[in-house]
Amino acid sequence: MKVVLLGSGNVATHLGKAMHQAGHKVLQVWSRTIQNALQLAKLLDASATDSISQLNNDADIYIVSVSDDAIASLVDQFRFPEKMLVHTSGTASLEVLEAASAQTGVFYPLQTFSKVKPVDFSKVPVAIEGSSKQVEEILLTLAASLTKKTVVFDSEKRKSLHVAAVFACNFSNHLYTIASEILKESGLDFDLIRPLIAETSDKVQYFFPHEVQTGPAVRRDQNVINKHLTFLNSKPELKELYESLSQNIINFHQKP
Amino acid sequence: MKVVLLGSGNVATHLGKAMHQAGHKVLQVWSRTIQNALQLAKLLDASATDSISQLNNDADIYIVSVSDDAIASLVDQFRFPEKMLVHTSGTASLEVLEAASAQTGVFYPLQTFSKVKPVDFSKVPVAIEGSSKQVEEILLTLAASLTKKTVVFDSEKRKSLHVAAVFACNFSNHLYTIASEILKESGLDFDLIRPLIAETSDKVQYFFPHEVQTGPAVRRDQNVINKHLTFLNSKPELKELYESLSQNIINFHQKP
Repeated sequence: MKVVLLGSGNVATHLGKAMHQAGHKVLQVWSRTIQNALQLAKLLDASATDSISQLNNDADIYIVSVSDDAIASLVDQFRFPEKMLVHTSGTASLEVLEAASAQTGVFYPLQTFSKVKPVDFSKVPVAIEGSSKQVEEILLTLAASLTKKTVVFDSEKRKSLHVAAVFACNFSNHLYTIASEILKESGLDFDLIRPLIAETSDKVQYFFPHEVQTGPAVRRDQNVINKHLTFLNSKPELKELYESLSQNIINFHQKP
Repeated sequence: MKVVLLGSGNVATHLGKAMHQAGHKVLQVWSRTIQNALQLAKLLDASATDSISQLNNDADIYIVSVSDDAIASLVDQFRFPEKMLVHTSGTASLEVLEAASAQTGVFYPLQTFSKVKPVDFSKVPVAIEGSSKQVEEILLTLAASLTKKTVVFDSEKRKSLHVAAVFACNFSNHLYTIASEILKESGLDFDLIRPLIAETSDKVQYFFPHEVQTGPAVRRDQNVINKHLTFLNSKPELKELYESLSQNIINFHQKP
């Protein structure tokens, strides 16, 4: 397919690369910042622009991959009534695109993308939504050219998938950051807990997480919990997080 | 070495197996519950007991691997002044063992162990502490027979390692549980986010977690955050967690 990519962030970058590698033609990259547009366009043999009025008219599909806050105001600036227009958000509605096109859709790749690290896109689940069966079919075909895992979800299912992803990925990663800060303060190397992090995620590839929960909270080891809370006395924000997460574990695992 | 293992939980099981495989002789397994002692003893070609007065006197080392709450009262029931006595806790002090032996130590394997899943012990960091240089040396030799990663830590460093591990592992795993519950309620399969969980932990094997943080909070995408909070309206505990973790991410990443 011929594609115009609006955005140059993590998702746009990895999606653009995957489409380029799969033989799709990315004609143009738009970004608010021309340097970012140029940088991504170079990787994709595409042209670059920071001007909405200069958007290429020849594409089959226009993919908006910017933060949710920015979608509406961006889409408000152009009209491609005959072209397919999709966004890549886990949470934004289909309706946010309606004013600009009659063929709208969602193409939500469920993965954590950082520019610094390559991703095997063939293992990334992509959730599709289309304003019509026809749009849905085209998006499914596009998705199937990039990955083995495609699903068709309505906006509510997609949103619950996104919320789950925020807990499982974004929040987990921040807990790694907290751990690395605690280690740093004690002069310890983050390398010490890298194997632990790897094993924690590896376990749930085969089991459900509630089956393999470990640690003081699930053991109700109040002795350890109290010592850890004392240890965190000088860090009230972390102490509060420790308390609420421990309580949440205790509550969940005492369910009958 | 000749070993008596006091405990039959996740740590005792994996440590016992690793020692057995490395050629150490586990003479006996004690557990409060004889069935558990028998089950683990069978794996280790050891005898089993639930009676402290029946503890085998011939071991070189007595390893106490029970929850922190239980260590003191257990250790209070025997005296092996000439034998080495260690516990495997991340948080309990060395002193808790003092009444029972003059040669005390800590042998803390930093990993999440579940009986259902094998672990490659050679990759598990083990933190050592000894009441004397001599004890430390012996424990280091024992550790080195099981793993490539050994460190000598005092109790404070070990505790900070344990607190970091609770955040990075126990709490992360509970976030996976929360994600799986959210998916389940929407009729979605946990398989959908397994690749995301794998990638999240894989990233921090090469980068520091703050370098690869993604998601609405670090992007300050208040639009998405608000929609997710509304989505969680019927689950006040999760809504509160979502809010405090998001705020914590925002605060951390706005640091200069």
